[in-house]
Amino acid sequence: MAVVEYDGTEYLGYQIQRIGKTVQGEIEKALQRVTQHRTRILGAGRTDAGVHAKGQVIHFAADWKHTLPDLQRALNALLPADIAVVELQEAMPRFHARYSARSREYVYTIHNGIIRSPLIARWAYHFPRPLDAEAMNQACACLVGEHDFLPFGWIPGGERDRPVTGRGTVRTVLRASCERQGDIVRVTIEADAFLRSMARRMVGNLLLVGAGELTAEQFKGLLQLTHRRLPGVAAPAHGLCLSKVKY
Amino acid sequence: MAVVEYDGTEYLGYQIQRIGKTVQGEIEKALQRVTQHRTRILGAGRTDAGVHAKGQVIHFAADWKHTLPDLQRALNALLPADIAVVELQEAMPRFHARYSARSREYVYTIHNGIIRSPLIARWAYHFPRPLDAEAMNQACACLVGEHDFLPFGWIPGGERDRPVTGRGTVRTVLRASCERQGDIVRVTIEADAFLRSMARRMVGNLLLVGAGELTAEQFKGLLQLTHRRLPGVAAPAHGLCLSKVKY
Repeated sequence: MAVVEYDGTEYLGYQIQRIGKTVQGEIEKALQRVTQHRTRILGAGRTDAGVHAKGQVIHFAADWKHTLPDLQRALNALLPADIAVVELQEAMPRFHARYSARSREYVYTIHNGIIRSPLIARWAYHFPRPLDAEAMNQACACLVGEHDFLPFGWIPGGERDRPVTGRGTVRTVLRASCERQGDIVRVTIEADAFLRSMARRMVGNLLLVGAGELTAEQFKGLLQLTHRRLPGVAAPAHGLCLSKVKY
Repeated sequence: MAVVEYDGTEYLGYQIQRIGKTVQGEIEKALQRVTQHRTRILGAGRTDAGVHAKGQVIHFAADWKHTLPDLQRALNALLPADIAVVELQEAMPRFHARYSARSREYVYTIHNGIIRSPLIARWAYHFPRPLDAEAMNQACACLVGEHDFLPFGWIPGGERDRPVTGRGTVRTVLRASCERQGDIVRVTIEADAFLRSMARRMVGNLLLVGAGELTAEQFKGLLQLTHRRLPGVAAPAHGLCLSKVKY
């Protein structure tokens, strides 16, 4: 298993596609060049186009006669500058990057300053209107727990690809919080699993709370809404980062 | 006068050139579109290709009938995502971005971790070997003061463009320090003015101190060397950022 960090700006997302640059595609290409055989890798989270990762976890089975540090060095030498294998170790028996994961943690970074800041623009969403981070933090609290998160997401791949729990759109949010450090407002959400674009839809609606357009009470009510009727749109991909996967 | 922030990755440097994308060129283009006339801007520091700025200062004279916030908004709407005017105010009489500056502060960021980190790779130089930041900080001390910095730089533009002080390669370093925060090692150097590539050459040789290849005493001796005989090469541009200009 490997922990992978990437700047998702230039990618169509984690998951390989027939056409276009993907994180999975780049890693599989590097693996093939290093091991001289095709290897399919499997990731814990299918991050969308433009989403970053500090702690994406992947697993794969490859033939390799040398040491793991040698493999890691070889991969990092071949991978583009915006992808790196930051950890590599032998997986436990039956380890599965996606199914063995207990939780995923996403961090969404908002730059809450009046003027945009080019040095952080790749990974922080610029939101110039004043945000009440404390109100956002209070609204976060009502996400915690086991809920049907249907209003905040949809099932990956639609009918073909049912969620792994077999329980439709019910997920458990283990932790959700919002904090401010100067101009930076960070939303952290940890859940057993995420529906497609769930994190970004949560943040998009938390921003309405922060901007005073939605009360914490109204935000709580969103969980009762039918699918795709949320007041807020999904927050842009580039603010989102898959920070950690726990096993 | 305006304070300008930019991610220098995609630019040939601050200063306009006949061919190629420059920060000055982009700002002048935006100014021309907004004010409908050509305006030459003048910057406090001519940052090299790939060098970033958080606090570059420019001045210019332009006809503008509306408010300064209007001008700033218009410029930021037209400028590319990697350049922004973060402050804009009327200049004092006889203000000159370069000649009125009392000092420039540069920060050089080193990522001192074993594995490279894609999320910080645009603005932090990856140096995987262990660095003794405290030794680097001690070596910094001998840079402070008025010295002939000829070994660490050369005169911008060679013979044609003499340094503004009229005293050749003598400069005054007001502050130089190095500190570690986790894997990040930051070198901060403030001087009345910098010779061309002086900051990067200082850092390149401080890295030798940090890696144990040069003692602080030997580093001090570098100031006595003849031009271009330094043991260390200039550190790469992408770690450097013009953080502040003081007046």
